[in-house]
Amino acid sequence: MSGVGKYNKRVENVNSLVCVGLDPDFEKLPEKFKSLKHPQFEFNKWIIQETHEYVAAYKPNMGSYEVRGKDGWEDLQITMDYLQDSYPDIFTISDAKRGDIGYTNGLYAKAIFDTLGFDAVTLHPYLGQEALKPFLDRTDKVSIILCRTSNPGAGELQDLEVAGKKLWEIVAEKVSKEWNYNNNCMLVVGATYPEELKKVREITGETTFLVPGFGTQGGSVKEVMESGLNFQKAGLIISSSKAIIFADHPGEEARSLRDEANKYRQ
Amino acid sequence: MSGVGKYNKRVENVNSLVCVGLDPDFEKLPEKFKSLKHPQFEFNKWIIQETHEYVAAYKPNMGSYEVRGKDGWEDLQITMDYLQDSYPDIFTISDAKRGDIGYTNGLYAKAIFDTLGFDAVTLHPYLGQEALKPFLDRTDKVSIILCRTSNPGAGELQDLEVAGKKLWEIVAEKVSKEWNYNNNCMLVVGATYPEELKKVREITGETTFLVPGFGTQGGSVKEVMESGLNFQKAGLIISSSKAIIFADHPGEEARSLRDEANKYRQ
Repeated sequence: MSGVGKYNKRVENVNSLVCVGLDPDFEKLPEKFKSLKHPQFEFNKWIIQETHEYVAAYKPNMGSYEVRGKDGWEDLQITMDYLQDSYPDIFTISDAKRGDIGYTNGLYAKAIFDTLGFDAVTLHPYLGQEALKPFLDRTDKVSIILCRTSNPGAGELQDLEVAGKKLWEIVAEKVSKEWNYNNNCMLVVGATYPEELKKVREITGETTFLVPGFGTQGGSVKEVMESGLNFQKAGLIISSSKAIIFADHPGEEARSLRDEANKYRQ
Repeated sequence: MSGVGKYNKRVENVNSLVCVGLDPDFEKLPEKFKSLKHPQFEFNKWIIQETHEYVAAYKPNMGSYEVRGKDGWEDLQITMDYLQDSYPDIFTISDAKRGDIGYTNGLYAKAIFDTLGFDAVTLHPYLGQEALKPFLDRTDKVSIILCRTSNPGAGELQDLEVAGKKLWEIVAEKVSKEWNYNNNCMLVVGATYPEELKKVREITGETTFLVPGFGTQGGSVKEVMESGLNFQKAGLIISSSKAIIFADHPGEEARSLRDEANKYRQ
Protein backbone atom coordinates (compact mmCIF):
# COMPACT_ATOMS: atom_id res chain seq x y z
CA MET A 1 0.00 0.00 0.00
CA SER A 2 1.21 3.52 -0.75
CA GLY A 3 1.93 5.91 2.10
CA VAL A 4 -0.96 8.15 1.11
CA GLY A 5 -3.20 5.08 1.00
CA LYS A 6 -2.10 4.11 4.51
CA TYR A 7 -3.18 7.51 5.81
CA ASN A 8 -6.52 7.42 4.01
CA LYS A 9 -7.28 3.92 5.23
CA ARG A 10 -6.57 4.86 8.83
CA VAL A 11 -8.80 7.93 8.46
CA GLU A 12 -11.63 5.68 7.33
CA ASN A 13 -11.03 3.06 10.00
CA VAL A 14 -11.11 5.40 12.96
CA ASN A 15 -13.15 8.19 11.36
CA SER A 16 -10.59 10.78 12.35
CA LEU A 17 -8.32 13.32 10.66
CA VAL A 18 -6.42 14.02 13.87
CA CYS A 19 -2.65 13.89 14.12
CA VAL A 20 -1.00 14.18 17.52
CA GLY A 21 2.40 15.84 17.62
CA LEU A 22 4.69 13.76 19.82
CA ASP A 23 6.85 16.67 20.99
CA PRO A 24 7.77 15.61 24.53
CA ASP A 25 10.09 18.47 25.45
CA PHE A 26 11.97 17.19 28.45
CA GLU A 27 11.47 20.27 30.64
CA LYS A 28 7.71 20.05 30.14
CA LEU A 29 7.37 16.36 31.07
CA PRO A 30 5.50 15.44 34.26
CA GLU A 31 8.04 14.81 37.02
CA LYS A 32 7.32 11.09 37.21
CA PHE A 33 8.67 10.61 33.67
CA LYS A 34 11.83 12.69 34.03
CA SER A 35 13.68 10.17 36.16
CA LEU A 36 12.97 7.16 33.92
CA LYS A 37 15.67 5.71 31.70
CA HIS A 38 13.78 6.62 28.53
CA PRO A 39 11.68 9.60 29.62
CA GLN A 40 10.52 10.73 26.20
CA PHE A 41 9.65 7.22 25.07
CA GLU A 42 7.75 6.42 28.27
CA PHE A 43 5.80 9.66 27.98
CA ASN A 44 5.08 8.99 24.30
CA LYS A 45 3.93 5.46 25.09
CA TRP A 46 1.48 6.84 27.63
CA ILE A 47 0.24 9.48 25.18
CA ILE A 48 -0.17 6.85 22.46
CA GLN A 49 -2.12 4.55 24.77
CA GLU A 50 -4.40 7.42 25.78
CA THR A 51 -5.00 8.78 22.28
CA HIS A 52 -4.52 6.08 19.64
CA GLU A 53 -8.18 5.24 19.08
CA TYR A 54 -8.89 8.84 18.12
CA VAL A 55 -5.96 9.51 15.82
CA ALA A 56 -4.98 8.83 12.25
CA ALA A 57 -1.36 9.91 12.61
CA TYR A 58 1.47 10.70 15.02
CA LYS A 59 4.03 13.35 14.23
CA PRO A 60 7.22 13.58 16.33
CA ASN A 61 9.09 16.83 15.80
CA MET A 62 12.78 15.99 15.52
CA GLY A 63 13.87 19.09 17.43
CA SER A 64 12.28 17.80 20.63
CA TYR A 65 14.58 14.79 20.52
CA GLU A 66 17.75 16.21 18.99
CA VAL A 67 18.07 18.68 21.84
CA ARG A 68 18.84 15.65 24.05
CA GLY A 69 21.48 14.33 21.65
CA LYS A 70 21.87 10.57 21.27
CA ASP A 71 19.55 9.90 24.22
CA GLY A 72 16.76 11.78 22.48
CA TRP A 73 17.46 9.99 19.23
CA GLU A 74 17.25 6.67 21.04
CA ASP A 75 13.92 7.57 22.67
CA LEU A 76 12.58 8.46 19.24
CA GLN A 77 13.79 5.15 17.79
CA ILE A 78 12.13 3.19 20.59
CA THR A 79 8.94 5.19 20.12
CA MET A 80 8.91 4.32 16.42
CA ASP A 81 9.61 0.64 17.16
CA TYR A 82 6.73 0.63 19.64
CA LEU A 83 4.34 2.27 17.16
CA GLN A 84 5.26 -0.16 14.38
CA ASP A 85 4.83 -3.16 16.68
CA SER A 86 1.66 -2.09 18.47
CA TYR A 87 -0.17 0.21 16.05
CA PRO A 88 1.20 -0.54 12.58
CA ASP A 89 -1.77 0.99 10.80
CA ILE A 90 -1.25 4.47 12.28
CA PHE A 91 0.43 6.89 9.86
CA THR A 92 3.74 8.31 11.15
CA ILE A 93 5.25 11.66 10.14
CA SER A 94 8.77 12.78 10.92
CA ASP A 95 8.47 16.53 11.30
CA ALA A 96 12.09 17.03 10.31
CA LYS A 97 11.85 19.83 7.70
CA ARG A 98 14.88 18.46 5.91
CA GLY A 99 16.18 19.57 2.53
CA ASP A 100 19.72 19.18 1.17
CA ILE A 101 21.33 18.30 -2.16
CA GLY A 102 20.35 14.98 -3.72
CA TYR A 103 23.20 12.89 -2.35
CA THR A 104 22.57 14.00 1.22
CA ASN A 105 18.81 13.70 0.84
CA GLY A 106 19.47 10.05 0.03
CA LEU A 107 21.03 9.71 3.48
CA TYR A 108 18.19 11.58 5.16
CA ALA A 109 15.59 9.46 3.36
CA LYS A 110 17.33 6.33 4.59
CA ALA A 111 17.64 7.73 8.13
CA ILE A 112 13.99 8.72 8.38
CA PHE A 113 12.20 6.10 6.27
CA ASP A 114 14.39 3.07 6.98
CA THR A 115 16.43 3.51 10.16
CA LEU A 116 13.61 5.22 12.06
CA GLY A 117 10.80 3.68 10.00
CA PHE A 118 8.57 6.70 9.35
CA ASP A 119 5.86 6.73 6.67
CA ALA A 120 6.37 10.40 5.84
CA VAL A 121 8.67 13.39 6.32
CA THR A 122 8.27 17.16 6.07
CA LEU A 123 10.60 18.81 3.54
CA HIS A 124 11.78 22.26 2.41
CA PRO A 125 11.17 23.08 -1.26
CA TYR A 126 14.04 25.60 -1.67
CA LEU A 127 16.50 23.27 -3.47
CA GLY A 128 13.91 22.12 -6.01
CA GLN A 129 12.56 18.82 -7.31
CA GLU A 130 15.92 17.49 -8.48
CA ALA A 131 17.36 17.60 -4.98
CA LEU A 132 14.29 15.96 -3.44
CA LYS A 133 14.36 12.99 -5.82
CA PRO A 134 15.55 10.46 -3.17
CA PHE A 135 12.39 11.27 -1.20
CA LEU A 136 10.04 11.61 -4.18
CA ASP A 137 11.21 8.29 -5.64
CA ARG A 138 10.13 6.41 -2.53
CA THR A 139 6.76 5.13 -3.77
CA ASP A 140 6.16 3.47 -0.38
CA LYS A 141 6.61 6.72 1.54
CA VAL A 142 5.23 10.26 1.59
CA SER A 143 6.99 13.58 1.00
CA ILE A 144 5.22 16.47 2.72
CA ILE A 145 6.50 19.72 1.22
CA LEU A 146 6.36 23.04 3.07
CA CYS A 147 4.01 25.33 1.16
CA ARG A 148 2.51 27.92 3.53
CA THR A 149 3.84 27.56 7.06
CA SER A 150 1.91 28.46 10.22
CA ASN A 151 4.34 30.96 11.78
CA PRO A 152 3.51 34.71 12.02
CA GLY A 153 6.40 35.69 9.71
CA ALA A 154 5.67 33.03 7.08
CA GLY A 155 4.78 35.63 4.49
CA GLU A 156 8.18 37.32 4.35
CA LEU A 157 9.37 34.96 1.62
CA GLN A 158 6.28 32.87 0.96
CA ASP A 159 4.17 35.88 -0.06
CA LEU A 160 6.70 37.24 -2.54
CA GLU A 161 5.07 37.75 -5.93
CA VAL A 162 6.25 35.71 -8.88
CA ALA A 163 4.49 36.51 -12.15
CA GLY A 164 1.33 37.57 -10.36
CA LYS A 165 1.31 34.64 -7.98
CA LYS A 166 2.59 34.20 -4.45
CA LEU A 167 5.60 31.97 -3.93
CA TRP A 168 3.48 29.52 -1.91
CA GLU A 169 1.09 29.25 -4.87
CA ILE A 170 4.01 28.39 -7.14
CA VAL A 171 5.15 25.72 -4.68
CA ALA A 172 1.62 24.31 -4.51
CA GLU A 173 1.44 24.16 -8.33
CA LYS A 174 4.86 22.63 -8.78
CA VAL A 175 4.34 19.96 -6.14
CA SER A 176 0.87 18.94 -7.29
CA LYS A 177 1.62 19.04 -11.03
CA GLU A 178 5.31 18.08 -11.30
CA TRP A 179 6.88 16.74 -8.12
CA ASN A 180 3.97 14.42 -7.35
CA TYR A 181 4.80 11.97 -10.18
CA ASN A 182 4.45 9.04 -7.79
CA ASN A 183 1.28 10.33 -6.14
CA ASN A 184 3.15 10.45 -2.86
CA CYS A 185 3.31 14.17 -2.09
CA MET A 186 1.40 16.16 0.47
CA LEU A 187 1.74 19.84 1.42
CA VAL A 188 2.16 21.70 4.70
CA VAL A 189 -0.37 24.52 4.99
CA GLY A 190 -0.71 26.25 8.36
CA ALA A 191 -4.04 26.41 10.18
CA THR A 192 -3.35 30.06 10.88
CA TYR A 193 -3.84 30.98 7.21
CA PRO A 194 -7.30 29.70 6.17
CA GLU A 195 -7.53 31.97 3.10
CA GLU A 196 -4.29 30.57 1.74
CA LEU A 197 -5.48 27.06 2.62
CA LYS A 198 -8.60 27.58 0.51
CA LYS A 199 -6.51 28.74 -2.44
CA VAL A 200 -4.11 25.79 -2.12
CA ARG A 201 -7.13 23.48 -2.17
CA GLU A 202 -8.30 25.11 -5.41
CA ILE A 203 -4.84 24.76 -6.95
CA THR A 204 -4.18 21.16 -5.97
CA GLY A 205 -7.50 19.35 -6.13
CA GLU A 206 -7.38 16.24 -3.96
CA THR A 207 -3.90 16.61 -2.45
CA THR A 208 -3.68 15.98 1.29
CA PHE A 209 -2.47 18.81 3.53
CA LEU A 210 -0.69 18.51 6.82
CA VAL A 211 -2.19 21.37 8.82
CA PRO A 212 -0.29 22.39 11.94
CA GLY A 213 -0.99 25.51 13.98
CA PHE A 214 -3.97 24.54 16.11
CA GLY A 215 -3.78 24.74 19.88
CA THR A 216 -1.04 27.06 21.07
CA GLN A 217 -0.65 28.71 17.65
CA GLY A 218 -4.35 29.65 17.51
CA GLY A 219 -5.65 28.10 14.28
CA SER A 220 -9.44 27.58 14.04
CA VAL A 221 -10.75 24.08 13.30
CA LYS A 222 -13.93 25.53 11.79
CA GLU A 223 -12.07 27.79 9.37
CA VAL A 224 -9.63 25.08 8.38
CA MET A 225 -12.33 22.48 7.75
CA GLU A 226 -14.46 24.91 5.75
CA SER A 227 -11.46 25.99 3.67
CA GLY A 228 -9.46 22.82 3.31
CA LEU A 229 -11.58 19.68 2.89
CA ASN A 230 -11.36 17.97 -0.49
CA PHE A 231 -14.28 16.41 -2.39
CA GLN A 232 -14.09 13.26 -0.27
CA LYS A 233 -14.56 15.39 2.84
CA ALA A 234 -11.01 14.45 3.79
CA GLY A 235 -7.53 15.37 2.52
CA LEU A 236 -6.49 17.04 5.76
CA ILE A 237 -4.21 16.05 8.61
CA ILE A 238 -5.37 18.09 11.57
CA SER A 239 -2.30 18.34 13.74
CA SER A 240 -2.08 19.42 17.35
CA SER A 241 0.81 18.86 19.71
CA LYS A 242 1.26 20.56 23.06
CA ALA A 243 -2.46 21.33 23.52
CA ILE A 244 -3.07 17.57 23.51
CA ILE A 245 0.01 15.93 24.98
CA PHE A 246 0.35 18.33 27.91
CA ALA A 247 -3.38 18.47 28.65
CA ASP A 248 -4.68 16.95 31.88
CA HIS A 249 -6.51 14.34 29.82
CA PRO A 250 -4.79 13.85 26.44
CA GLY A 251 -7.30 11.24 25.29
CA GLU A 252 -10.23 13.55 25.85
CA GLU A 253 -8.47 16.38 24.03
CA ALA A 254 -7.73 14.15 21.03
CA ARG A 255 -11.31 12.87 20.93
CA SER A 256 -12.65 16.37 21.24
CA LEU A 257 -10.51 17.59 18.33
CA ARG A 258 -11.61 14.58 16.26
CA ASP A 259 -15.27 15.29 16.98
CA GLU A 260 -14.95 19.00 16.31
CA ALA A 261 -13.31 18.34 12.94
CA ASN A 262 -15.86 15.66 12.04
CA LYS A 263 -18.73 18.10 12.50
CA TYR A 264 -17.69 19.67 9.21
CA ARG A 265 -17.34 16.39 7.34
CA GLN A 266 -21.05 15.43 7.27
CA MET B 1 34.64 36.62 20.44
CA SER B 2 31.83 36.45 17.90
CA GLY B 3 31.44 33.39 15.73
CA VAL B 4 32.34 35.30 12.60
CA GLY B 5 35.39 36.65 14.42
CA LYS B 6 36.44 33.13 15.33
CA TYR B 7 36.38 32.13 11.68
CA ASN B 8 38.30 35.20 10.54
CA LYS B 9 40.95 34.76 13.22
CA ARG B 10 41.50 31.13 12.26
CA VAL B 11 41.79 32.15 8.59
CA GLU B 12 44.54 34.59 9.54
CA ASN B 13 46.33 32.18 11.84
CA VAL B 14 46.65 29.34 9.34
CA ASN B 15 46.37 31.42 6.17
CA SER B 16 43.63 29.18 4.82
CA LEU B 17 40.02 29.48 3.70
CA VAL B 18 39.58 25.72 3.51
CA CYS B 19 36.74 23.88 5.21
CA VAL B 20 36.77 20.09 5.25
CA GLY B 21 33.40 18.37 5.21
CA LEU B 22 33.41 15.60 7.79
CA ASP B 23 30.95 13.35 5.97
CA PRO B 24 32.17 9.87 6.89
CA ASP B 25 29.50 7.78 5.21
CA PHE B 26 29.83 4.40 6.80
CA GLU B 27 29.83 2.38 3.58
CA LYS B 28 32.71 4.46 2.23
CA LEU B 29 34.97 4.11 5.28
CA PRO B 30 38.22 2.14 4.95
CA GLU B 31 37.66 -1.37 6.26
CA LYS B 32 39.92 -0.91 9.27
CA PHE B 33 37.55 1.71 10.69
CA LYS B 34 34.30 -0.15 10.13
CA SER B 35 34.83 -2.65 12.93
CA LEU B 36 35.72 -0.05 15.58
CA LYS B 37 33.26 0.88 18.30
CA HIS B 38 33.03 4.48 17.04
CA PRO B 39 33.88 4.14 13.37
CA GLN B 40 32.84 7.61 12.25
CA PHE B 41 34.57 9.32 15.15
CA GLU B 42 37.79 7.35 14.69
CA PHE B 43 37.81 8.16 10.99
CA ASN B 44 37.10 11.84 11.72
CA LYS B 45 39.88 11.94 14.30
CA TRP B 46 42.31 10.61 11.73
CA ILE B 47 41.10 13.10 9.11
CA ILE B 48 41.41 15.96 11.62
CA GLN B 49 44.93 14.93 12.57
CA GLU B 50 45.92 14.76 8.91
CA THR B 51 44.32 18.03 7.83
CA HIS B 52 43.99 20.44 10.78
CA GLU B 53 47.01 22.61 10.02
CA TYR B 54 45.60 23.45 6.60
CA VAL B 55 42.01 24.18 7.52
CA ALA B 56 39.99 27.02 8.97
CA ALA B 57 36.81 25.03 9.51
CA TYR B 58 35.24 21.58 9.72
CA LYS B 59 31.73 20.92 8.53
CA PRO B 60 30.00 17.65 9.43
CA ASN B 61 26.88 17.01 7.38
CA MET B 62 24.20 15.74 9.75
CA GLY B 63 22.81 13.27 7.20
CA SER B 64 25.99 11.20 7.32
CA TYR B 65 25.44 10.58 11.01
CA GLU B 66 21.65 10.45 11.26
CA VAL B 67 21.53 7.53 8.85
CA ARG B 68 23.19 5.48 11.64
CA GLY B 69 20.63 6.61 14.22
CA LYS B 70 21.79 7.11 17.81
CA ASP B 71 25.18 5.54 17.08
CA GLY B 72 25.87 8.14 14.41
CA TRP B 73 24.67 10.91 16.69
CA GLU B 74 27.06 9.67 19.37
CA ASP B 75 30.00 9.59 16.95
CA LEU B 76 29.20 13.16 15.99
CA GLN B 77 29.07 14.25 19.63
CA ILE B 78 32.44 12.62 20.36
CA THR B 79 33.89 14.25 17.26
CA MET B 80 32.71 17.65 18.45
CA ASP B 81 34.07 17.03 21.95
CA TYR B 82 37.41 16.05 20.45
CA LEU B 83 37.54 19.17 18.27
CA GLN B 84 36.68 21.46 21.16
CA ASP B 85 39.31 19.87 23.39
CA SER B 86 42.12 19.54 20.88
CA TYR B 87 41.54 22.30 18.31
CA PRO B 88 39.30 24.87 19.98
CA ASP B 89 40.22 27.63 17.52
CA ILE B 90 38.93 25.76 14.47
CA PHE B 91 35.51 26.99 13.30
CA THR B 92 32.83 24.27 13.28
CA ILE B 93 29.75 24.22 11.05
CA SER B 94 26.80 21.90 11.44
CA ASP B 95 25.58 21.35 7.90
CA ALA B 96 22.06 20.62 9.12
CA LYS B 97 19.93 22.80 6.82
CA ARG B 98 17.35 23.21 9.54
CA GLY B 99 14.40 25.58 9.49
CA ASP B 100 11.18 25.31 11.51
CA ILE B 101 8.86 27.67 13.37
CA GLY B 102 10.41 29.79 16.11
CA TYR B 103 9.63 27.53 19.04
CA THR B 104 11.19 24.50 17.37
CA ASN B 105 14.14 26.50 16.08
CA GLY B 106 14.84 27.27 19.72
CA LEU B 107 15.23 23.53 20.31
CA TYR B 108 17.40 23.08 17.22
CA ALA B 109 19.61 26.02 18.22
CA LYS B 110 20.11 24.44 21.63
CA ALA B 111 20.78 21.01 20.09
CA ILE B 112 23.34 22.28 17.62
CA PHE B 113 25.00 25.17 19.45
CA ASP B 114 24.87 23.87 23.02
CA THR B 115 24.42 20.09 23.13
CA LEU B 116 26.74 19.45 20.18
CA GLY B 117 28.75 22.66 20.58
CA PHE B 118 28.93 23.93 17.00
CA ASP B 119 29.91 27.51 16.13
CA ALA B 120 27.56 27.70 13.14
CA VAL B 121 24.65 26.01 11.40
CA THR B 122 23.22 26.07 7.88
CA LEU B 123 19.57 27.17 7.68
CA HIS B 124 16.66 27.35 5.23
CA PRO B 125 15.21 30.85 4.65
CA TYR B 126 11.68 29.74 3.66
CA LEU B 127 9.97 30.49 7.00
CA GLY B 128 11.45 33.99 7.22
CA GLN B 129 13.39 36.04 9.76
CA GLU B 130 10.81 35.77 12.52
CA ALA B 131 11.11 31.99 12.63
CA LEU B 132 14.91 32.08 12.62
CA LYS B 133 15.12 34.46 15.59
CA PRO B 134 16.40 31.79 18.05
CA PHE B 135 19.39 31.32 15.75
CA LEU B 136 19.85 34.98 14.79
CA ASP B 137 19.73 36.09 18.43
CA ARG B 138 22.74 33.95 19.30
CA THR B 139 25.43 36.62 19.14
CA ASP B 140 28.06 34.00 19.99
CA LYS B 141 27.12 31.79 17.06
CA VAL B 142 26.71 32.02 13.28
CA SER B 143 23.62 31.48 11.12
CA ILE B 144 24.51 30.45 7.58
CA ILE B 145 21.44 30.95 5.38
CA LEU B 146 20.90 29.05 2.13
CA CYS B 147 20.96 31.57 -0.72
CA ARG B 148 22.04 29.86 -3.95
CA THR B 149 22.66 26.14 -3.47
CA SER B 150 25.16 24.06 -5.46
CA ASN B 151 22.81 21.39 -6.85
CA PRO B 152 21.94 21.19 -10.58
CA GLY B 153 18.25 21.91 -9.95
CA ALA B 154 18.84 24.84 -7.59
CA GLY B 155 17.31 27.32 -10.00
CA GLU B 156 13.84 25.82 -10.05
CA LEU B 157 12.74 27.95 -7.12
CA GLN B 158 15.81 30.08 -6.47
CA ASP B 159 15.75 31.63 -9.96
CA LEU B 160 12.09 32.64 -9.82
CA GLU B 161 11.74 36.34 -10.59
CA VAL B 162 10.41 38.64 -7.91
CA ALA B 163 10.03 42.28 -8.99
CA GLY B 164 12.85 41.94 -11.51
CA LYS B 165 15.17 40.07 -9.17
CA LYS B 166 15.84 36.40 -8.62
CA LEU B 167 14.65 34.83 -5.39
CA TRP B 168 18.26 34.16 -4.34
CA GLU B 169 19.00 37.87 -4.77
CA ILE B 170 16.09 38.72 -2.49
CA VAL B 171 17.39 36.27 0.11
CA ALA B 172 20.88 37.79 -0.15
CA GLU B 173 19.46 41.29 0.34
CA LYS B 174 17.21 40.35 3.23
CA VAL B 175 19.89 38.47 5.10
CA SER B 176 22.61 41.09 4.66
CA LYS B 177 20.37 44.11 5.32
CA GLU B 178 17.75 42.84 7.78
CA TRP B 179 18.46 39.43 9.29
CA ASN B 180 22.10 40.21 10.05
CA TYR B 181 21.29 42.60 12.92
CA ASN B 182 23.85 40.87 15.13
CA ASN B 183 26.51 40.66 12.42
CA ASN B 184 26.38 36.90 12.74
CA CYS B 185 24.97 35.81 9.38
CA MET B 186 26.71 34.15 6.48
CA LEU B 187 25.26 32.81 3.22
CA VAL B 188 25.52 29.52 1.36
CA VAL B 189 26.43 30.09 -2.30
CA GLY B 190 27.39 27.06 -4.39
CA ALA B 191 30.75 26.87 -6.16
CA THR B 192 28.92 25.60 -9.22
CA TYR B 193 27.33 29.03 -9.82
CA PRO B 194 30.19 31.58 -10.05
CA GLU B 195 28.07 34.23 -11.82
CA GLU B 196 25.53 34.17 -9.02
CA LEU B 197 28.37 34.22 -6.49
CA LYS B 198 29.71 37.42 -8.03
CA LYS B 199 26.30 39.03 -7.84
CA VAL B 200 25.80 37.98 -4.20
CA ARG B 201 29.18 39.55 -3.43
CA GLU B 202 28.00 42.82 -5.01
CA ILE B 203 24.76 42.73 -3.04
CA THR B 204 26.22 41.88 0.35
CA GLY B 205 29.58 43.64 0.59
CA GLU B 206 31.75 41.92 3.18
CA THR B 207 29.47 39.02 4.16
CA THR B 208 31.17 35.63 4.39
CA PHE B 209 29.94 32.84 2.10
CA LEU B 210 30.08 29.15 2.75
CA VAL B 211 30.88 27.75 -0.69
CA PRO B 212 30.26 24.02 -1.16
CA GLY B 213 30.33 22.23 -4.48
CA PHE B 214 34.04 21.69 -5.13
CA GLY B 215 35.41 18.23 -5.67
CA THR B 216 32.75 15.76 -6.71
CA GLN B 217 30.26 18.50 -7.62
CA GLY B 218 32.72 20.15 -10.03
CA GLY B 219 33.04 23.75 -8.84
CA SER B 220 36.18 25.65 -9.96
CA VAL B 221 38.42 27.21 -7.30
CA LYS B 222 39.65 29.81 -9.78
CA GLU B 223 36.17 30.96 -10.74
CA VAL B 224 34.98 31.03 -7.13
CA MET B 225 37.97 33.00 -5.89
CA GLU B 226 37.75 35.51 -8.74
CA SER B 227 34.02 35.96 -8.20
CA GLY B 228 33.66 35.69 -4.46
CA LEU B 229 36.52 37.29 -2.49
CA ASN B 230 35.64 40.37 -0.49
CA PHE B 231 37.82 43.49 -0.11
CA GLN B 232 39.95 41.80 2.55
CA LYS B 233 40.73 39.02 0.09
CA ALA B 234 38.73 36.71 2.33
CA GLY B 235 35.02 36.25 3.14
CA LEU B 236 34.85 32.75 1.71
CA ILE B 237 34.69 29.29 3.25
CA ILE B 238 36.00 26.96 0.57
CA SER B 239 34.38 23.66 1.42
CA SER B 240 35.29 20.23 0.10
CA SER B 241 34.23 16.92 1.58
CA LYS B 242 34.58 13.57 -0.15
CA ALA B 243 37.40 14.69 -2.47
CA ILE B 244 39.50 15.30 0.64
CA ILE B 245 38.40 12.79 3.25
CA PHE B 246 38.33 9.81 0.90
CA ALA B 247 41.55 10.75 -0.91
CA ASP B 248 44.63 8.54 -0.45
CA HIS B 249 46.34 11.43 1.34
CA PRO B 250 43.74 13.75 2.90
CA GLY B 251 46.37 16.11 4.30
CA GLU B 252 47.92 16.66 0.90
CA GLU B 253 44.53 17.28 -0.66
CA ALA B 254 43.63 19.85 2.01
CA ARG B 255 46.98 21.62 1.64
CA SER B 256 46.66 21.60 -2.12
CA LEU B 257 43.18 23.17 -1.94
CA ARG B 258 44.47 25.79 0.52
CA ASP B 259 47.38 26.65 -1.77
CA GLU B 260 45.23 26.78 -4.88
CA ALA B 261 42.77 29.15 -3.18
CA ASN B 262 45.57 31.31 -1.77
CA LYS B 263 46.99 31.92 -5.23
CA TYR B 264 44.07 34.27 -5.82
CA ARG B 265 44.43 36.10 -2.50
CA GLN B 266 47.75 37.86 -3.23
